[in-house]
Amino acid sequence: MKFRISRSALVEAVSQVSKAVSQKTTVPILTGVKASVDEDGLWLTGSNSDLTIQVCVPVKKDDKEQVKVETIGSVVLPGRIFSDIVRKLPGKSVDWVVDEQWKTILRSEQAQFELKGLDPEEYPRLPQLREDRMFSLPADLLKSMIRQTGFAVSTSEARGVLTGVLWQISSGKLTFVATDSHRLSRRQADVEAPEDLSVENVVVPGKSLSELGKILADQTGWVDVVLSENQVMVRADNLLFFSRLLDGTYPDTNRVIPNSGKTEVLLNTKELLQSVDRAALISRDGQDNVIKWTMKGEDTVQVHSASQDVGSVLEEVGAQVNGEEMSISFNAQFMLEALRAVDSDEIQIHFTGTMTPFVIQPADREDALHLIVPIRTR
Amino acid sequence: MKFRISRSALVEAVSQVSKAVSQKTTVPILTGVKASVDEDGLWLTGSNSDLTIQVCVPVKKDDKEQVKVETIGSVVLPGRIFSDIVRKLPGKSVDWVVDEQWKTILRSEQAQFELKGLDPEEYPRLPQLREDRMFSLPADLLKSMIRQTGFAVSTSEARGVLTGVLWQISSGKLTFVATDSHRLSRRQADVEAPEDLSVENVVVPGKSLSELGKILADQTGWVDVVLSENQVMVRADNLLFFSRLLDGTYPDTNRVIPNSGKTEVLLNTKELLQSVDRAALISRDGQDNVIKWTMKGEDTVQVHSASQDVGSVLEEVGAQVNGEEMSISFNAQFMLEALRAVDSDEIQIHFTGTMTPFVIQPADREDALHLIVPIRTR
Repeated sequence: MKFRISRSALVEAVSQVSKAVSQKTTVPILTGVKASVDEDGLWLTGSNSDLTIQVCVPVKKDDKEQVKVETIGSVVLPGRIFSDIVRKLPGKSVDWVVDEQWKTILRSEQAQFELKGLDPEEYPRLPQLREDRMFSLPADLLKSMIRQTGFAVSTSEARGVLTGVLWQISSGKLTFVATDSHRLSRRQADVEAPEDLSVENVVVPGKSLSELGKILADQTGWVDVVLSENQVMVRADNLLFFSRLLDGTYPDTNRVIPNSGKTEVLLNTKELLQSVDRAALISRDGQDNVIKWTMKGEDTVQVHSASQDVGSVLEEVGAQVNGEEMSISFNAQFMLEALRAVDSDEIQIHFTGTMTPFVIQPADREDALHLIVPIRTR
Repeated sequence: MKFRISRSALVEAVSQVSKAVSQKTTVPILTGVKASVDEDGLWLTGSNSDLTIQVCVPVKKDDKEQVKVETIGSVVLPGRIFSDIVRKLPGKSVDWVVDEQWKTILRSEQAQFELKGLDPEEYPRLPQLREDRMFSLPADLLKSMIRQTGFAVSTSEARGVLTGVLWQISSGKLTFVATDSHRLSRRQADVEAPEDLSVENVVVPGKSLSELGKILADQTGWVDVVLSENQVMVRADNLLFFSRLLDGTYPDTNRVIPNSGKTEVLLNTKELLQSVDRAALISRDGQDNVIKWTMKGEDTVQVHSASQDVGSVLEEVGAQVNGEEMSISFNAQFMLEALRAVDSDEIQIHFTGTMTPFVIQPADREDALHLIVPIRTR
């Protein structure tokens, strides 16, 4: 195995796969990065027990040579130090030579590193997925859908399937749902899918999606998504992402989403966010992180929070209120996270009662919603 | 107590004193910030058992009114939440009212916070220092002296006095010395001091100096330094900083600094820094963080490090070498920290032998030096 590679291209690829590399693991070889060079370029693979990322540095990009291959081959290098080395090498290109014992030399200008590599045959194979359940969507849309739902998954491993985001497809419409049973976020979008593709219970671990969001950060084109019994694969430019799926049946959440409200409120998203953020300063020191809203007259939402030890906060936010005057108490942190996931300037909130869930929606679209279960207070 | 204050000025002052406020403490009132308003402006004080910071927001700054006082008075507010609140208040000014029970109202535009304050009489008084041992220097110089020595203090509380930086004054020259007994850093500068001022054993805790460096970040003028038996006070524009001193006698370090070298090497600081940084990638995984230098011929320093488990690195750095060829091993981290403290483009290193300390100095000045004790290797 012998080749020369552009250092900047290598640095970028290593930083992508490093997101999947285990720091600690029961499978020692997974602390490494697998590198394979062939006629197409350099392939790097990083993996932990849940997800696998493979990145390709193609031989040419925009007609510029990035990899010059002399001899093809593979090796596994210790992940953390390999990543540190390529970042700190001095030159614009790296000469990379591996011998039969996987001893690896990385040379760049006056600096030369020698690393003990491992046998690539011992590195786990990539999952092989049949591509019969597949759909496509823009990378930016997938990133939005992840960002607007992922925060609502349960963080308690005891809740199993709720630590993931439910993916459903029906009639070309993709739906993401996440809930920890105290709040729920849902996002829908049309995707390019075969008309007869129907998916009901694919649950992707929240942590995998959070990594996927990061590695898609610079992707602008479309991505393909392939689903199998226990894996999801996302394929973008020079990038493959695999995650295992969660076992178990995701609960039916459609019934908990109310269709109409007793009181409807229209508010400016940013103003409301700042006001909840301030009230949360007090509620964080109190019990349960609770703040209280009172809808007053036709144009005011009063935001209030009090903590016995610290003090209290009171402020009014301008709004359009339709329906009954009412008060409701809820977790300020849930509201903050929901509001931060909204990209629209205005939001609509539908209250159904003091003790029943309420729904937050961007005022200008119906494909996204956040539901919060109120808290009973004295 | 009743006044109105510019919120931006308040935010800045609070962020300064917050650096001294205890998160946990055996003296509960020290988790608070003391606020006192009088004809001069608002005074904020934060403290922990080691250091105290007092900041003034003067009534006027550059002819612009910052504080409008109606009634003078004092109160102690819970530090962390008070700091969060002022940062997140919506308006350009804050109305601040405290009643007889120290209940405090902070109002800014539509937002109103009510906080439980504490009796300011219970807050510790500032130390009263006689100003007979005093000197002055530019804030920038003091910051440099801290940055170029503070990193070398011992982090082991067992070493008592070595966790601080020694301050000495003689004939108008201020000297800072820090050592953990494996390396030493020294910086000297002329300051404005009475000719007969002689200081031999003032030791300031390294942690206090690190905070002082931060709060002086934006200061550009001169600062006064006042020394007492057990406190140092630094006075800058609208700012007072107090730190307790460490007990004990600092060891005499002059004897350990060699005066001449067997081998002298002149190197480019940045090139060398990058090379040591790379070598440290390997040494960090090995024993003792050791790298080895070999001075070869008249123009080369060979940098080498090897770790049995990971691999090795070898590179050559251009240099001007005068004297005997030799090899020496030392702690890479100590060298990195010393090199990062050097502002000059070139450095001179004086080696006295394989097992005796060597000295790193900026090539263009003699007021700063770093000494490193080599490590015996197999």
